[in-house]
Amino acid sequence: MRTPIPDYLTEVLEDLRHQDGGAPADYIPELSAADPERFALALTTTLGQTFSAGDDDVEFSIQSISKPFAYAAAIIDRGLDRVLGSVGVEPSGEAFNELSLEGESHRPKNPMINAGAITVHALLVGPEATQEQRVDRILTFFSHLAGRRLRIDEDVFTSELEHAHRNLAIAHMLASYDVLDGEVDPVVEGYTKQCSILVTVRDLSAMSATLATGGIQPVTGERLMEPDTARQVMAVMAAAGMYDAAGDWLTRVGIPAKSGVAGGMVGVLPDQVGIGAFSPRLSAQGNSVRGGLAFERMSADMGMHLFASDRARVDAVEVREEEGTVTFLLQGIVQFTAASELLDLMEQVDDEASVVLDASRVHAFSDVGRRMTLEGVRRLRLDGHEVTVSDPSDALPDAGPDAEEIPAQV
Amino acid sequence: MRTPIPDYLTEVLEDLRHQDGGAPADYIPELSAADPERFALALTTTLGQTFSAGDDDVEFSIQSISKPFAYAAAIIDRGLDRVLGSVGVEPSGEAFNELSLEGESHRPKNPMINAGAITVHALLVGPEATQEQRVDRILTFFSHLAGRRLRIDEDVFTSELEHAHRNLAIAHMLASYDVLDGEVDPVVEGYTKQCSILVTVRDLSAMSATLATGGIQPVTGERLMEPDTARQVMAVMAAAGMYDAAGDWLTRVGIPAKSGVAGGMVGVLPDQVGIGAFSPRLSAQGNSVRGGLAFERMSADMGMHLFASDRARVDAVEVREEEGTVTFLLQGIVQFTAASELLDLMEQVDDEASVVLDASRVHAFSDVGRRMTLEGVRRLRLDGHEVTVSDPSDALPDAGPDAEEIPAQV
Amino acid sequence: MRTPIPDYLTEVLEDLRHQDGGAPADYIPELSAADPERFALALTTTLGQTFSAGDDDVEFSIQSISKPFAYAAAIIDRGLDRVLGSVGVEPSGEAFNELSLEGESHRPKNPMINAGAITVHALLVGPEATQEQRVDRILTFFSHLAGRRLRIDEDVFTSELEHAHRNLAIAHMLASYDVLDGEVDPVVEGYTKQCSILVTVRDLSAMSATLATGGIQPVTGERLMEPDTARQVMAVMAAAGMYDAAGDWLTRVGIPAKSGVAGGMVGVLPDQVGIGAFSPRLSAQGNSVRGGLAFERMSADMGMHLFASDRARVDAVEVREEEGTVTFLLQGIVQFTAASELLDLMEQVDDEASVVLDASRVHAFSDVGRRMTLEGVRRLRLDGHEVTVSDPSDALPDAGPDAEEIPAQV
Amino acid sequence: MRTPIPDYLTEVLEDLRHQDGGAPADYIPELSAADPERFALALTTTLGQTFSAGDDDVEFSIQSISKPFAYAAAIIDRGLDRVLGSVGVEPSGEAFNELSLEGESHRPKNPMINAGAITVHALLVGPEATQEQRVDRILTFFSHLAGRRLRIDEDVFTSELEHAHRNLAIAHMLASYDVLDGEVDPVVEGYTKQCSILVTVRDLSAMSATLATGGIQPVTGERLMEPDTARQVMAVMAAAGMYDAAGDWLTRVGIPAKSGVAGGMVGVLPDQVGIGAFSPRLSAQGNSVRGGLAFERMSADMGMHLFASDRARVDAVEVREEEGTVTFLLQGIVQFTAASELLDLMEQVDDEASVVLDASRVHAFSDVGRRMTLEGVRRLRLDGHEVTVSDPSDALPDAGPDAEEIPAQV
Repeated sequence: MRTPIPDYLTEVLEDLRHQDGGAPADYIPELSAADPERFALALTTTLGQTFSAGDDDVEFSIQSISKPFAYAAAIIDRGLDRVLGSVGVEPSGEAFNELSLEGESHRPKNPMINAGAITVHALLVGPEATQEQRVDRILTFFSHLAGRRLRIDEDVFTSELEHAHRNLAIAHMLASYDVLDGEVDPVVEGYTKQCSILVTVRDLSAMSATLATGGIQPVTGERLMEPDTARQVMAVMAAAGMYDAAGDWLTRVGIPAKSGVAGGMVGVLPDQVGIGAFSPRLSAQGNSVRGGLAFERMSADMGMHLFASDRARVDAVEVREEEGTVTFLLQGIVQFTAASELLDLMEQVDDEASVVLDASRVHAFSDVGRRMTLEGVRRLRLDGHEVTVSDPSDALPDAGPDAEEIPAQV
Repeated sequence: MRTPIPDYLTEVLEDLRHQDGGAPADYIPELSAADPERFALALTTTLGQTFSAGDDDVEFSIQSISKPFAYAAAIIDRGLDRVLGSVGVEPSGEAFNELSLEGESHRPKNPMINAGAITVHALLVGPEATQEQRVDRILTFFSHLAGRRLRIDEDVFTSELEHAHRNLAIAHMLASYDVLDGEVDPVVEGYTKQCSILVTVRDLSAMSATLATGGIQPVTGERLMEPDTARQVMAVMAAAGMYDAAGDWLTRVGIPAKSGVAGGMVGVLPDQVGIGAFSPRLSAQGNSVRGGLAFERMSADMGMHLFASDRARVDAVEVREEEGTVTFLLQGIVQFTAASELLDLMEQVDDEASVVLDASRVHAFSDVGRRMTLEGVRRLRLDGHEVTVSDPSDALPDAGPDAEEIPAQV
Repeated sequence: MRTPIPDYLTEVLEDLRHQDGGAPADYIPELSAADPERFALALTTTLGQTFSAGDDDVEFSIQSISKPFAYAAAIIDRGLDRVLGSVGVEPSGEAFNELSLEGESHRPKNPMINAGAITVHALLVGPEATQEQRVDRILTFFSHLAGRRLRIDEDVFTSELEHAHRNLAIAHMLASYDVLDGEVDPVVEGYTKQCSILVTVRDLSAMSATLATGGIQPVTGERLMEPDTARQVMAVMAAAGMYDAAGDWLTRVGIPAKSGVAGGMVGVLPDQVGIGAFSPRLSAQGNSVRGGLAFERMSADMGMHLFASDRARVDAVEVREEEGTVTFLLQGIVQFTAASELLDLMEQVDDEASVVLDASRVHAFSDVGRRMTLEGVRRLRLDGHEVTVSDPSDALPDAGPDAEEIPAQV
Repeated sequence: MRTPIPDYLTEVLEDLRHQDGGAPADYIPELSAADPERFALALTTTLGQTFSAGDDDVEFSIQSISKPFAYAAAIIDRGLDRVLGSVGVEPSGEAFNELSLEGESHRPKNPMINAGAITVHALLVGPEATQEQRVDRILTFFSHLAGRRLRIDEDVFTSELEHAHRNLAIAHMLASYDVLDGEVDPVVEGYTKQCSILVTVRDLSAMSATLATGGIQPVTGERLMEPDTARQVMAVMAAAGMYDAAGDWLTRVGIPAKSGVAGGMVGVLPDQVGIGAFSPRLSAQGNSVRGGLAFERMSADMGMHLFASDRARVDAVEVREEEGTVTFLLQGIVQFTAASELLDLMEQVDDEASVVLDASRVHAFSDVGRRMTLEGVRRLRLDGHEVTVSDPSDALPDAGPDAEEIPAQV
């Protein structure tokens, strides 16, 4: 058999192909010459599988989709506090190329608008970094995220640089407020190179899936950032990724996303998937028309929504009592919710009973789930119960009698 | 043993009790007379357990926390399209009592600001509803959400009504744009009653846990709204619940939340918990100082963050081959990610092999996960494989040989 | 012969009658029923002559044209400082019915927008005034300005009050900021009555000519306000009278003006004329289409522009020397400019010469012109010159040898 | 004797010298090194007299005071329509260095903010002009306005150029909207040179007096611009010259004005004076503290206010009847007002009477005053009256029997 996912993706492409609204960006020849019928989709799961359909090997310039990933790189290079000192996290309610600086600090409101993205680019590597070092950093980092060596489209770069009045204006304004770290011209040049990196939809889905896992590239298994960094990037995408339609997108589609003027688009759902799309037909707002529709379709068809909560509910903890022994059978993912129930049930164990904790069917413990489970075992033992733990996959490494105390944080 | 969760909550209360910044709201005597040292926390899981600590039986007026729940009621009563026709979903970037109407439509930007909440109140029940009907509707609905009969604090209501210049201004402005459905004075009166409903932190955590489950009150088991409605409410809380600090809250705390001027606060994480907090000391922005800190603390201690993705990863699908039979052992929650892996593995089955699908360890299927699994079974059978399904909890009801085709939507 | 001015005004009316853009205001039947072809113009000079043409005896409601005159009344009643404490003088750059409050003080930006005009109305008479007293004050004051007894159109008043949502919204908002002096409902009612006062174009031109003279009703000769008050009102009309097109109007037309939604319009040029116009066809911005064109036409045809300075120049001071006597012949209006020249010429008088100052041809002295002239005479006498003053109209009452010193202020 | 005006100016300087608030601009050494105690005032009347006091020969860079005069030059070079196509005339309500572009056209709101002034500079000479030509044009034009050869301070220019991030930002933004006519770098360089031209307060008063006369440099007698151009410049200064305090300045001081960051300030009253002031102590808004106070003082002391109308009123037309002859004795400035009265009186002449029009005491006719007077003479003659005109200064050149008809425009 063949897995039906590519068929599904192909079907989405076919269903939307009649949508011929919009047109490629026309401010430089390199973009306006794009074939408007190109259309591609890709999904990468947190387990590392990538599915794709359509023109999935066509390269296009990453453009504004580079913003969240460069933001991640700047946090890695300079620390979150330093980055927050220069760029905020609030939605701007304005178009991508508005200045949108905060009142007193003159920080750009967020890293998803050009002002913020230019400031972020200038922060890369370190205070004394050269343009070359910053561009090299971004190209290398993006290549690791994509899982293959990426390159810059020099024609797009040259052409964009000739039309960089807006970005030069923004950069000079930032420099006038001492927000920009670096010289205006090299920073705008470097940022323009960042936007000219060539990617495919498969690259994009792999890049965003790396956010979904909390920082591990799911195909290569390489950890590229800390979970807190991935969390920050996804949260800012949710708050500000869709510019002035943040609320509409978050309610209707529910997949934090970012689009680029070449027609690319990425989306991410934590612990689930990264998504890449490509169609050069842009709406008046500069977003890929078909790309947006494809996201909407996937959200509806597959329940892919940040606030979906329609999973069938079964008991997470089963209790069996037999001849003085109480067995707790855990299954699935043990987060706070399941662990809470376990602790509640443990509270009702008879004084004399022996206890068996069977974790053999557990798919995964969250950190707090593990700590709560261990604390339950510890408390039962303190109460004099004999507790046996069945943990074949060693998910509860410290379940021995001398398990550490974890009072302050559950 | 005793479950450690109340201990943890008590510890959070103790740790934050020295935070004596802020003061109760002072615009009416009923609020300014509140004991500033009151402090309480409550958690309700999607499995229906409620934990609480501190002054968890003290009643206070719900105030702006009523907004998301009244929004749910209006969607139930009038349909999402009708509600969206009158109230948007975009963050306003402004304080709660700013007018924040959209340019051409004059729709209030979202239901979390007063202008939007007043419009939402006016939509309740139906076009011809009286003030009494709207208030009765809200009181009944909130009572179902809380799981007990709630009541209005008449003193707070009377006093607030005397200070309702701002809300009257907003309502008259909405009426001048024909946005408001109903007469100005009864609507403002009814809305003021809505804000005067008395709740405890346990009520609040149960109310928001009902959103977390996708609409089922987790203690009573009653379905109070459709999953799509709960999804809409949570998404709008995420986008606009914290007024002009939406991005900061979403990145730093990551728990969609809403606060009230009496010191209450709710938060929600889909599929996990509802949270209630209470402390009358307000910041200059009108949010509970200690309440906000408690949320921050819980987010940090328990990894409760919308974009947390640090769960330990184990294989979701195990494959065993034995004497011409391939067994797929599914476990945990089978969403898109796990189902994708299953389908990928199914693709590699030898032509002659028999297949066993063991779903006995599955904790839950998401809707798309179930459909994908069934499609894999169907395709294997089409290819001539004999497929046996072990499904003791009947989570795959249609796994028989005549399982329906599900082509278009995986 | 007949004076050609009415002919000229009639010609303007005829030339513009084909302009059939716009339509009467349609929010209440009393305005929408207005005959759209009504058209009238009137001019009143500072010498008290009134010329008019067209429907110059048709009454219409004064509406927003009441704003500058009520502002004058409030300054008279409460003093400029008290009024400035509640209402600013800056252009709002927004439409008339926008809230346009200043940042911290929440003062309405100026008295020409509704928020400012409502606040001004509430200031009338005194802190304890009743609605009746305020309305009576305005009706009496406007009657004195017009030179005849005016009355309120009760139908317009009743109908407007039913559509007063916007003004009620504004008034409640002002009350919520403690900017409004008085109860909301009576203030809005009184303000609506103020707007419903009936006037003709001849009334309007007389009212504004009273500003042009510096406060004296030019027909009745009654002083109705101090020059400083008239100055304040004209300056605010210039800065903010035309709402969001202040600069365009000030450059192109150059006649500070104010329009009303019933089709009326007033304009004023200090020391020259007051103008009234009426045509119910309104532009999308709510200004009388033909009224605005008539103003434009008069500005162009007659050089009526605040910044016109194309008067032919002749010498203001003639000097004649004859047999040891120097005669200074002053003529025209002796303001700073002419007096400066006089003083300059006086500086060159030979030590031994006698001096004659002939003021018999002087049309008028400005205050500073008179003081400077007297100071020249005084200085010449101090230098030992014999100075004779010929002043048949007694315009230099203190030109005797004991003329007071006027050092500090020229 | 000595004319008391310099004494008066000196007294104003002395009275304000204790005002030591504010400090010189500090963004470049050339400005911060200015002696904060420098203080000077100058007045130039429309008759060409200049009075000054204090440091009246100290040169300082003209800075933003160049804006209105460069605006005049651009109107001369390109026509008003072309200039209005690129720069609006509305007050921005914002600080001088805000972008303040209009919504759809992206025109800078007015030529008094930097965005507008840069656009104006780019318009100078013609579409193909070089930086050198534009700078030469401005330097030559300003020299004619001042009546002496001015020069650029090269140190100020060089230093400002190093701190030109803000202006570069603005210029790039304008270029991105295709509003800017010319290359960004040469335009900003040329504009910086324009701002670095050195002037004294006597230069400034002469420059603005050239606006007051309607375009004739009052000392040299050279016509430098058309009356309409001077009118446009003064009107825009009134509407937008004081940035975000336009209304406050126009009401309180009433002298259209413009300030520069080096401490200079100009003001103008049409048909009266040009004023120059200099004191490097700047307020937080960037205006000269003492300069502003000196303007306020002169406005109060000398009744110099655009809306002052407190001139003593005497009859403008005297009528004498003697033996069948009616004599009209005109005096002063015959504008619309006096001519209206004349025509009204002419209307009452007996059928048989002869008429004498005595214009020998007329100081000046305005254009419309002359045309109205001639029309009266013409009509009387048409009615059969014999009319004799006494016009020694030939102010009514066409008063003969064949005086042209002037129907359409009075």
